[in-house]
Amino acid sequence: MTAAVLINGISPGDPLQALAVEDRGFHYGDGVFETALLTHGRVRWLEQHLRRLALGCERLGIVAPDAAALRSDVQRLSGSAERAVLKIIVSRGIGPRSYRPSARAKTTRVVALYPAPLPPPTTRLALRWCETRLGRNARLAGIKHLNRLEQVLAQAEWYDDAIVDGLMLDTEGELVGGTANNVFLVREGVLVTPDLRFCGVLGIMRAEVLRTAKELGIPVSEEPLWPRDVEAASEVFLTNAVRGIRSVTELGSLHWNGAPVADRLRKALDL
Amino acid sequence: MTAAVLINGISPGDPLQALAVEDRGFHYGDGVFETALLTHGRVRWLEQHLRRLALGCERLGIVAPDAAALRSDVQRLSGSAERAVLKIIVSRGIGPRSYRPSARAKTTRVVALYPAPLPPPTTRLALRWCETRLGRNARLAGIKHLNRLEQVLAQAEWYDDAIVDGLMLDTEGELVGGTANNVFLVREGVLVTPDLRFCGVLGIMRAEVLRTAKELGIPVSEEPLWPRDVEAASEVFLTNAVRGIRSVTELGSLHWNGAPVADRLRKALDL
Repeated sequence: MTAAVLINGISPGDPLQALAVEDRGFHYGDGVFETALLTHGRVRWLEQHLRRLALGCERLGIVAPDAAALRSDVQRLSGSAERAVLKIIVSRGIGPRSYRPSARAKTTRVVALYPAPLPPPTTRLALRWCETRLGRNARLAGIKHLNRLEQVLAQAEWYDDAIVDGLMLDTEGELVGGTANNVFLVREGVLVTPDLRFCGVLGIMRAEVLRTAKELGIPVSEEPLWPRDVEAASEVFLTNAVRGIRSVTELGSLHWNGAPVADRLRKALDL
Repeated sequence: MTAAVLINGISPGDPLQALAVEDRGFHYGDGVFETALLTHGRVRWLEQHLRRLALGCERLGIVAPDAAALRSDVQRLSGSAERAVLKIIVSRGIGPRSYRPSARAKTTRVVALYPAPLPPPTTRLALRWCETRLGRNARLAGIKHLNRLEQVLAQAEWYDDAIVDGLMLDTEGELVGGTANNVFLVREGVLVTPDLRFCGVLGIMRAEVLRTAKELGIPVSEEPLWPRDVEAASEVFLTNAVRGIRSVTELGSLHWNGAPVADRLRKALDL
């Protein structure tokens, strides 16, 4: 459960009765969200999260929430937290019964604090392949929108805590990433990651990893990838804004030992 | 705005503060909905709507709401309405911050009454082609789930009241239907409609039309269709549970006059 929440800047009297029944986020998943790590009262990569949120609003034609008000909400919730997850949701707000967005809709902004995830008990990190595929839609690709049934169905495929995430393919069989992580492969010294032109989320940590790799002189490539690229990789790791960079040790019959590239990136990014 | 609403059987004190901030319908679009026509206190095709709702829940692994409770909600709201739209939303309920559905989640059920749409001022019915494409996902095809951003983006393509709906193609260019309607074509005396194996909603009116056509001895076919099939059709009509069967008169440079098949179906269905 959330530790604290603000809806349009106001703490709801009862979090169980907080959102408008006609909010388009509920009716159509008509909005975007961000999930950030909060440590010692500071949100890691806040600017990057706010930028992606604004970009998502622009792509969906949602009036972005007032930046000062949003920052103020974040500040109010962040102060007391030693380590937590900050989630921001922005929906198009209340609207009539129609898919068509009204120009008069007033954006709903939700800022909520959640407990931070526990660190994993071992350094072993196993993945699986998901059967659920991702539909392609270039107009929704990259942004962190609220239409997440594909990820919900994918995560419902397994309840084994030893499996940390599942890799997802799109309907054409292209590799997209984990259900809640981006994926990177090392191929003959080159750091490669799916280009996400048709689906997937352009992760904040993904961007930080690409930027940092370039600074370190590691060649990088964003390109279409396939399951055979995972099989041929000398190193595989997951990235996500909350959990950082996590090296994969196994996937089915595949095993990886040692993660020199991920180690360099973690060190450079001070993770 | 809604005329009346029940959330888990209870009328909220304030519809603007009604839903739990952690409802998975809001976070992930994790649920399904129905939109039915209510006339003289009776919901048209209620059994069919409840059946599709249950099917959608089953497909998503959501515990379907108690049937008696849901019927009771519908009854309570229906009594006084001369003509209205009844909307039912069922979400997976409140859950922790994770795509993974929890077995403990308690379904949220919302039943709401909306004003009925006004009848169109003319018999002219113009369509357009939407640029927004539908991603393919066989696991979500057919059910009326809450991930509707593609329809929202499609309807945001035009604000011209003279255009009643837009036809949507999937990412491979196959015809799916309108943004909020199923589509039927007449091709050499055969009534054809997209099979919706990859996307789209299996409409209640669509099923009634197929059933009725068979009873009338009109040959029917559910199959993959393409824009060229629309161009070659001798008759085109839209179906939707609220608005019934509506004959299309124009689409770009295409024009249709007379709608003998739609007329027969409307008469047989007493619309």
